[in-house]
Amino acid sequence: MSNPSLLILPGDGIGPEVMAEVRKVIDWFGAKRDLAFDVSEDLVGGCAYDAHGTPLTDATMARAQEVDAVLLGAVGGPKYDQLDFSVKPERGLLRLRKEMDLYANLRPAQCFDALAEFSSLKPEVVGGLDIMIIRELTSGVYFGEPRGIVREGNERVGINTQRYTESEIARVARSAFELARKRDNKVCSMEKANVMESGVLWRDVVQEIHDAEYPDVELSHMYADAGAMQLTRWPKQFDVIVTDNLFGDLLSDLAAMLTGSLGMLPSASLGAPMANGRPKALYEPVHGSAPDIAGQGKANPIACILSFAMALRYSFDAGDEAQRLESAVNAVLADGLRTADLLGQEGVEPVTTAQMGDAILAKL
Amino acid sequence: MSNPSLLILPGDGIGPEVMAEVRKVIDWFGAKRDLAFDVSEDLVGGCAYDAHGTPLTDATMARAQEVDAVLLGAVGGPKYDQLDFSVKPERGLLRLRKEMDLYANLRPAQCFDALAEFSSLKPEVVGGLDIMIIRELTSGVYFGEPRGIVREGNERVGINTQRYTESEIARVARSAFELARKRDNKVCSMEKANVMESGVLWRDVVQEIHDAEYPDVELSHMYADAGAMQLTRWPKQFDVIVTDNLFGDLLSDLAAMLTGSLGMLPSASLGAPMANGRPKALYEPVHGSAPDIAGQGKANPIACILSFAMALRYSFDAGDEAQRLESAVNAVLADGLRTADLLGQEGVEPVTTAQMGDAILAKL
Ligand SMILES: CC(C)[C@H](C(=O)O)[C@@H](O)C(=O)O
Ligand SMILES: CC(C)[C@H](C(=O)O)[C@@H](O)C(=O)O
Repeated sequence: MSNPSLLILPGDGIGPEVMAEVRKVIDWFGAKRDLAFDVSEDLVGGCAYDAHGTPLTDATMARAQEVDAVLLGAVGGPKYDQLDFSVKPERGLLRLRKEMDLYANLRPAQCFDALAEFSSLKPEVVGGLDIMIIRELTSGVYFGEPRGIVREGNERVGINTQRYTESEIARVARSAFELARKRDNKVCSMEKANVMESGVLWRDVVQEIHDAEYPDVELSHMYADAGAMQLTRWPKQFDVIVTDNLFGDLLSDLAAMLTGSLGMLPSASLGAPMANGRPKALYEPVHGSAPDIAGQGKANPIACILSFAMALRYSFDAGDEAQRLESAVNAVLADGLRTADLLGQEGVEPVTTAQMGDAILAKL
Repeated sequence: MSNPSLLILPGDGIGPEVMAEVRKVIDWFGAKRDLAFDVSEDLVGGCAYDAHGTPLTDATMARAQEVDAVLLGAVGGPKYDQLDFSVKPERGLLRLRKEMDLYANLRPAQCFDALAEFSSLKPEVVGGLDIMIIRELTSGVYFGEPRGIVREGNERVGINTQRYTESEIARVARSAFELARKRDNKVCSMEKANVMESGVLWRDVVQEIHDAEYPDVELSHMYADAGAMQLTRWPKQFDVIVTDNLFGDLLSDLAAMLTGSLGMLPSASLGAPMANGRPKALYEPVHGSAPDIAGQGKANPIACILSFAMALRYSFDAGDEAQRLESAVNAVLADGLRTADLLGQEGVEPVTTAQMGDAILAKL
């Protein structure tokens, strides 16, 4: 049997340098754990635009459809701010999500004990925090038509459409309930059903799927504005949160920031199973391309390395190996190693991106 | 000259009991400061539905258009959850906002020093915090057409439309720049221009208004997800934030929760100037109807009282009197008086809604 295949898309900014550390980790698993991958690498985002005039070529898109999993670094940067909307770096990422139909975006918000001090929240509020936000990723206002800027009379009008079908809601609700069963068995669904009809449908469908298929899971509903408040007030009240693409964008970033460990948080975007049973999948860190520190060896590679751990768990059925990698990361943090983003205590010297990667390898 | 007119809409849940305290304050200003108002009272929300089958009658709507300012308590409650979307309590409030064309929603997020301990954030992060969020309130996805739940093939589809015209963006941008000039002269505008064309137009128009009319104000732009993060990480970096209706809903609630003083925060919703030069205006507390504690004398009347202070400032050009009222509130807090929502320290007995109102009167 041939090795499972990985497509690596380092992208822009700090993407390439954090991905270089992930490559070392991938190689280690091939050499030491008999978990070899066929790895190919390609462009996405601004660098793809520079090379090809598009943030994602058709060839790269086709390759992403074939592989067992895609690993992405980050896209975007001020250099590309003036580009036309249709070729912005982000469109490359959005095309991948849409055409691979990666409808369930898993965003764990976990507080690493060694790093709780970096949170702007009180230690008792975030210590031990471990929640999972499931964000719908292929529909809603990110993709709905009509959209654009049109002229009406003598003014411009900006239009986007929030649109959710019953089946789009149902499938991501199932992802949330399935995950909850492996965790604390609690799902909170968030929308604005008091203001938006798409939210009314969202709430109804989530409730229907629950009642018909997952009556054993504890389900609650919350308006998204109250959700933002409750996440800030007492995040530990949540286990799994399921919400739409746009609310999920804000709420998962908010949740990530609560932990104080933004440079640490991975994500998985999963679609339907392929012929080989594996889900279509893309893994990426939650942090962005951080152009201000790119190329300086300051970036924290952990979020990207933990994204690979998620790949091991969700694409390659290697939960034990994922655990091994996560433990290595924890061990390095416990030793006091910190990249520049994690500095706070006086007298601690930051390690470089590569030193952090090497230290994790050494623990493996 | 006749007295300025106030329409009071206590609404549902704790609305009536907090508004009763505001009435005492209004009477005090009439008796002691020669600032008498013609006050009328009416129904909005669930109680209006109970009485009339609609959350806002045409007669109440007409009255709201005539008066100098509307003061609202809160709307909604579980009793009304099963009502059809078109007659939900919230529709009464949304109709007021829309028909009075109250496009600029001012939401101060201020941390009361005496209450900083109630924040889930570290004291150094929120102590002294004083930011102002200007939320567009009459357009965007709250009101855009088409909307609704339709059937397509054999499934339901939920649809809402985000729609902003250039002039809608321009006028709320002006409100933000005007306010910034009276504060720290800094505006941060938030949207998702990397994903939504309506956000691209938003960013462009805000920048154009800035360059043409307010070049002296410091302007920055931020994606709304990054905004949620930055508000959580270090909220004091902001002075005035301007954003759309939906992002403003989440971000202003998030900002309110940062302060730990949710029961304390007022809001003003302002429209264009009327014939008498006063803006159309509605004032309401940020907190909701809190049905779980309604009728028990536990509610905190301060947010609603401070909403009246905003009315004094923005509708009645009585900034000094507003200040007087705000100082009375601060004095009562400094004395250690706490309603039940503000308890934390052991040994402190909560005061009732009415006791808090009376204490504030005593300080005036
Ligand atoms: C880069 C951008 C298009 C993206 C989004 O808005 O989805 C990012 O913020 C994310 O959350 O993955
Ligand atoms: C009650 C509801 C309609 C309202 C809104 O979503 O605007 C509330 O959350 C608010 O922020 O004033």
